[in-house]
Amino acid sequence: MKSDKKFPKVIIIGGGFGGIQLAKKLRHAEVNILMLDRHNYHTFQPLLYQVATGGLEPDSIAFPIRKVFREQKNLAFRVANVTAIHTENNTISTSIGDFDYDYLVLATGSETNFFGQKEIEHYAMPMKTVPEALNLRSLILQNLEEALIEEDPIRRDALLNFVVVGGGPTGVETAGALAELKNHVLPADYPELDIQRMRIFLIENSERVLTPFSEQASYKAQEFLENMGVTVMLQKLVAAYDGDRVVLKDGEILPTKAVIWSAGVKGATIPGLDKAQIVRGGRIKTQPDNLIVGYNNIFAIGDLAAIESPEYPYGHPGVAQVAIQQGQQLAKNLVRIINNQPTQAFDYYDKGAMATIGRNKAVVDLKYWKFQGFFAWLTWMFIHLLFLVGFRNKMVTLMNWIVNYFSYDRGTRLIIRKFDRDLMKEEAEAI
Amino acid sequence: MKSDKKFPKVIIIGGGFGGIQLAKKLRHAEVNILMLDRHNYHTFQPLLYQVATGGLEPDSIAFPIRKVFREQKNLAFRVANVTAIHTENNTISTSIGDFDYDYLVLATGSETNFFGQKEIEHYAMPMKTVPEALNLRSLILQNLEEALIEEDPIRRDALLNFVVVGGGPTGVETAGALAELKNHVLPADYPELDIQRMRIFLIENSERVLTPFSEQASYKAQEFLENMGVTVMLQKLVAAYDGDRVVLKDGEILPTKAVIWSAGVKGATIPGLDKAQIVRGGRIKTQPDNLIVGYNNIFAIGDLAAIESPEYPYGHPGVAQVAIQQGQQLAKNLVRIINNQPTQAFDYYDKGAMATIGRNKAVVDLKYWKFQGFFAWLTWMFIHLLFLVGFRNKMVTLMNWIVNYFSYDRGTRLIIRKFDRDLMKEEAEAI
Repeated sequence: MKSDKKFPKVIIIGGGFGGIQLAKKLRHAEVNILMLDRHNYHTFQPLLYQVATGGLEPDSIAFPIRKVFREQKNLAFRVANVTAIHTENNTISTSIGDFDYDYLVLATGSETNFFGQKEIEHYAMPMKTVPEALNLRSLILQNLEEALIEEDPIRRDALLNFVVVGGGPTGVETAGALAELKNHVLPADYPELDIQRMRIFLIENSERVLTPFSEQASYKAQEFLENMGVTVMLQKLVAAYDGDRVVLKDGEILPTKAVIWSAGVKGATIPGLDKAQIVRGGRIKTQPDNLIVGYNNIFAIGDLAAIESPEYPYGHPGVAQVAIQQGQQLAKNLVRIINNQPTQAFDYYDKGAMATIGRNKAVVDLKYWKFQGFFAWLTWMFIHLLFLVGFRNKMVTLMNWIVNYFSYDRGTRLIIRKFDRDLMKEEAEAI
Repeated sequence: MKSDKKFPKVIIIGGGFGGIQLAKKLRHAEVNILMLDRHNYHTFQPLLYQVATGGLEPDSIAFPIRKVFREQKNLAFRVANVTAIHTENNTISTSIGDFDYDYLVLATGSETNFFGQKEIEHYAMPMKTVPEALNLRSLILQNLEEALIEEDPIRRDALLNFVVVGGGPTGVETAGALAELKNHVLPADYPELDIQRMRIFLIENSERVLTPFSEQASYKAQEFLENMGVTVMLQKLVAAYDGDRVVLKDGEILPTKAVIWSAGVKGATIPGLDKAQIVRGGRIKTQPDNLIVGYNNIFAIGDLAAIESPEYPYGHPGVAQVAIQQGQQLAKNLVRIINNQPTQAFDYYDKGAMATIGRNKAVVDLKYWKFQGFFAWLTWMFIHLLFLVGFRNKMVTLMNWIVNYFSYDRGTRLIIRKFDRDLMKEEAEAI
């Protein structure tokens, strides 16, 4: 391993937005960094829904972590699952052995939250990783193929119904992308199917979609979705899903073979930390400098971290910008700590939020300017291309978007691996 | 299903080069076509090795079959595994039910031939489908990650040795691509590994690589490979492989955790046909008009078909051009048969052969012109782009090749799904 014995050892668990940013900003610091991730790539999560709906290939939104750090001499990377933290002797246990640290940073992000509903967890599709997005893509296409040979009209409708649970950005963008598939792509692919029987439901617990956005953005997003044919159901809760029928809390029943679960996330914690510091949403309570409360050398950043403040009583929103900015801030603070200087509190600069619903249809909330429609859609694309890691990924994604736009098509409707719910679990563990 | 009861039913099994071409050429014929394939996409097999070695994403070399036939009114497509042919009543059994035919065309191609060696079949990696190419990609990257944490030098060397068996175009191109990875990509990705310990072996049974090519092409290809660091071993046979060590027939032993098997193929037959017609290489003996000997309404084209002739005593070579030309010819013959006209014999027009070894290094054999090197490499790229199905695929592939060329890099080194030999079998059945 590249290392210099004099320098303190920093272990960063997770190569998401926060971990990558932190490690990059430490490139000139006098530390030896070990980054661990269960995948050998960084995932650009905001575009996972496009992989799931056939608009992009997985390779465009993922980037090899080794390549990010090619030039960085003070960092080593390993593919590993971290199984436990031993705070008493500053070590961690992983699938490839134990490692000791001087400073430990948890940048593990969040995972899908099924709120303890085991049956829903078994049957609904999460979409937080590339393999999960590919599973969803396979399921969507398999259901259409099955609908084609299903003679029972009720079972056929269930195969053609898609229920998206959760009206946050992921849910809204997924429902919109499914509507685009229905409106532009599938009629030509499946001339034998009455594609008007395909229905897309978006179920949201609160009284509007995109609750973190402005009301203006919410209402416009809902209008876009409804114009595209999505049935938006507000103030509804999913009570059960058995693989065939969604039962809502008010008793309404939606027959469907595909439920996409984007209703919530929880912090991806690792055993070994004081459970008292785990707060709402499975996050870990940290000081304003991202030091976990009760420890002096263990930090959390990004989705996992909860810096409670009057403005953000449950911590900052679980978005890429927070993770990136916390990674940057923690890099500065680690250098300060090593130099025996006091740390500085994290101060979130909210750059705004955006979501795309369909072609020419997006909503953008900036601090002083909120706009929707075609220009918002261009802005959304520009910003996402800008943040996508790697020149090749930017170019291939831009190319796909241009081709998709002018052809009214999605290029990558391939069932590369059949989705099989029973095999999935074993595989998910192997991944 | 789109169908007109008056017209004869043609079932085409397989959406490879031959099946696609046949169906396209029948678009104005008075027939009702049903095409079946176990995947919902056509695979451009000549570029599978680039998917396996991280140069291209799978979506660039696969194309949705439904999209190919969007405008074709006389064709229906179904994803199905065909399990048996019942020639006595002109029906087939499939995973989605039975279908009856007036004319049946087997365009199922070929599958990897392990020549009955069960242990090799279990441990070696085939590369005939997209999922197999992705498994190989994962294995290559996983072995490198493991080598990094392996402390035993012998086991580490085994993780860094790659043995390609079979010196045909696939074997040569794969060995060349692995050498490019070693020479240009991996040193930067794995600065902690002594990448010079990585060795690539190409094992060929006969006395030169690329036996179907001119001697000039064979020797130049070998020279290219050796200059790139590949150990070319001629007149060698693999006797055994137990997952750790390849044993050659002459007793030599190569420790390796990755054997890529491109040593042979056999026809992908379906139960129910007269076994007497199965000849060398598992192919089915057909008349010169591709009618299977002994039947009057069942045809075979492409890799599966053996039209024995003085020039091709065991049938034509198993290449895309033969399948394409036989598909075109059979389309004409089917129309003739339906109109009670005599069929015409297939006449293969050999356009030549080409293989690429590395950047600026390829060999091209045309009928009257054989050339190697940079111009051959440009020719190879041009022809492959031309034959790749779909505008998007052509553009994305061109973009990748340009970026790879100038960056000396491969964009898509992602372990999207971990390769696990024990899980693989179950999954392969599910696919």
